[in-house]
Amino acid sequence: MTEPLPVTLDDVRAAAGVIEGHVVRTPTRHSRTLSDIAGCDIYLKFENRQFTASFKERGALNRLMALTPEEKKRGVAAMSAGNHAQGVAYHAGRLGIPATIVMPVTAPFTKVKHTRDFGATVIQDGNDLKEANRAARAVAERDGLTFIHPYDDTKVIAGQGTLALEMLEDAPELDTLMVPVGGGGLISGIAVAAKALKPGITVYGAQAELYPVMRQAMRGEPLTEDPPAQTIAEGIAVKQPGALTAKIVKALVADILLVSEAAMEHALAMMLEIEKTVIEGAAAAGYAAVLKNRDLFAGRKVGIVMSGGNIDMRMLSNVILRELTREGRILTLDVAIADQPGALSRVAALVGDAGGNILEVSHNRMMSGLSAKSATLGMVIEARDAEHAAEGRAGLGKGGFPVLTGRRRAEV
Amino acid sequence: MTEPLPVTLDDVRAAAGVIEGHVVRTPTRHSRTLSDIAGCDIYLKFENRQFTASFKERGALNRLMALTPEEKKRGVAAMSAGNHAQGVAYHAGRLGIPATIVMPVTAPFTKVKHTRDFGATVIQDGNDLKEANRAARAVAERDGLTFIHPYDDTKVIAGQGTLALEMLEDAPELDTLMVPVGGGGLISGIAVAAKALKPGITVYGAQAELYPVMRQAMRGEPLTEDPPAQTIAEGIAVKQPGALTAKIVKALVADILLVSEAAMEHALAMMLEIEKTVIEGAAAAGYAAVLKNRDLFAGRKVGIVMSGGNIDMRMLSNVILRELTREGRILTLDVAIADQPGALSRVAALVGDAGGNILEVSHNRMMSGLSAKSATLGMVIEARDAEHAAEGRAGLGKGGFPVLTGRRRAEV
Repeated sequence: MTEPLPVTLDDVRAAAGVIEGHVVRTPTRHSRTLSDIAGCDIYLKFENRQFTASFKERGALNRLMALTPEEKKRGVAAMSAGNHAQGVAYHAGRLGIPATIVMPVTAPFTKVKHTRDFGATVIQDGNDLKEANRAARAVAERDGLTFIHPYDDTKVIAGQGTLALEMLEDAPELDTLMVPVGGGGLISGIAVAAKALKPGITVYGAQAELYPVMRQAMRGEPLTEDPPAQTIAEGIAVKQPGALTAKIVKALVADILLVSEAAMEHALAMMLEIEKTVIEGAAAAGYAAVLKNRDLFAGRKVGIVMSGGNIDMRMLSNVILRELTREGRILTLDVAIADQPGALSRVAALVGDAGGNILEVSHNRMMSGLSAKSATLGMVIEARDAEHAAEGRAGLGKGGFPVLTGRRRAEV
Repeated sequence: MTEPLPVTLDDVRAAAGVIEGHVVRTPTRHSRTLSDIAGCDIYLKFENRQFTASFKERGALNRLMALTPEEKKRGVAAMSAGNHAQGVAYHAGRLGIPATIVMPVTAPFTKVKHTRDFGATVIQDGNDLKEANRAARAVAERDGLTFIHPYDDTKVIAGQGTLALEMLEDAPELDTLMVPVGGGGLISGIAVAAKALKPGITVYGAQAELYPVMRQAMRGEPLTEDPPAQTIAEGIAVKQPGALTAKIVKALVADILLVSEAAMEHALAMMLEIEKTVIEGAAAAGYAAVLKNRDLFAGRKVGIVMSGGNIDMRMLSNVILRELTREGRILTLDVAIADQPGALSRVAALVGDAGGNILEVSHNRMMSGLSAKSATLGMVIEARDAEHAAEGRAGLGKGGFPVLTGRRRAEV
């Protein structure tokens, strides 16, 4: 007989009763266009519509409501890159519970600001979640605060699981769920609830390639200790899977799929342009994973959890511009020109006649490989699409300004 | 006795029956944060959630359904900068009616592409709506097509009015409606329905300062013939108010308020960052008008129509960056440095120590006013907020690199 899991459907149902009316009952909607693109039926859970714009409120509130009166009075401590911080800070503030939140120094400005605005004491300490976690534990011990773990806590897991109750109520036809995975709190709660309600359902996780620890834990592989780069999905940039969550994931989750940074950026841009909704990097992992594994999902009814919408606005702007570049709608190219009056005008006329919109121009004289009488003209141009861009290149060549190749920015 | 208006509540109710099930029943939601900011109760109508992401489908479909079988067979022509084009093209395509759409050459790439993707024949002709309109009329006459006017048509007006039925059903407590105005089709339909259902309700329009013709028509002022610049709100960049719509607006609309480009950009950025929703410039006019006229709306329950979500992605990226600049979260500054090794390193260290993130650097040697041995270092820096930016400036000064003032990009 297998060991019982630490969280049950009853725990999730109890959590739903506790948080009802205090978190948003977010919708689950079928997307026609995203379904057409993916070759399966896509249903989106808009958890970016929570007041603090992420699912974390569910678990945080369920945990806060389980505190004793004495614990409430002393207050709580939490550690988070942002969403758990905001979830704890908002509901603690609402309930009159003092909250101290430790955030890593790399946390996005917006998330730090919002957490402070909810009335929490914010301490920025540590270069990553692991270091910030250590600092938060130390603060909690020193001040006698109850530490609210972002994922490895039965009340938190049960709270996150309420999301699955809503999805299956709104779209009972779902046969597959796709959930972004960091520490595993969200997918654990969802898997417990969904598999109990509908045993035939398949639950997949999506993790950033750079932070694959839950997938590794699930497979008994050694954990990546030092991820080589920052990820756009800082909400799931976790180096240490939870003990409780790893146990649940091993028991109930079919697989955890990895997605690249570019794939998440692309999925995020599609949500903006097609669904007109703003999600954060982590929340884009699910649709990215479906697009990458089309055969696995063909013909299925896939519920994708868009876990949050807290993306730094400058980051969002970058994602848009990088996507336009990838699509060939913004292109960067160099042409050789004579260093004399009229040269720019002739090039600009060729670009304009081809319907290209010049966004930026730079002259490079010092490093032109041709001669001291020539210069390299660098341009950033907006085209309708990749095909239109190719026409523009050809037009420049015919007009006497062949495009010099090999400029790296074009392949961003 | 006053002359009867060309559209009645019964027409709007009939339109609702005609289009039901074929356009999205979009939600109306109260926004806590936007209400706090505006000092009144803000309810948003998410018309950006239509399949073609704008309200135009309502009127277009109602008009198409009124065609005779013979007219359906011959097909329709329409002229539009984008949203009406997509509305007509999508529903004509769905109903098997041939559609020819004339769009001005300035229409955003995305809108042109989508209109083509719906199966319409797209002709790009004319530098503005007036010229494109002339071209579309000519095509319609030549080919015997029924011309579907974007706003000055009773069926179109009645179709747009269905939006008000939904708003008042979802939020019967509304005492004020705020509607973006171009040619006046949307506000006319809404005013007819809302004033008939709830005579005490006040209907305001919001127009771009650069395109104030309906306001002028309402007041009997001469119409602005040649707007001096392009507007971000191309959906309401109309030079000629409708005859039918002007009549309805004069009879039922309390006032039309004008908003600046910056105010629309700001409102649009708030919808992104706070509401996590993507709207186009025209759709931002309503909230912008409320923020600009706080006394007028204080304590009111204001339903704001977010008319569409079709914004070019590069434009959206620009709006974000300009907003960050306005908020002081991105700042551009110049400092004088000695033209020698180590200078950049010292400046960069000062910025980094102050928590500023350097986004761009440029050296200007040729035009430095100081001496041939000095250079001007231009930097684009990201700060947490305006206060943090001021700290950073002070830090540079103390470190021996006073900030040279008067750089224009800082005041964008």
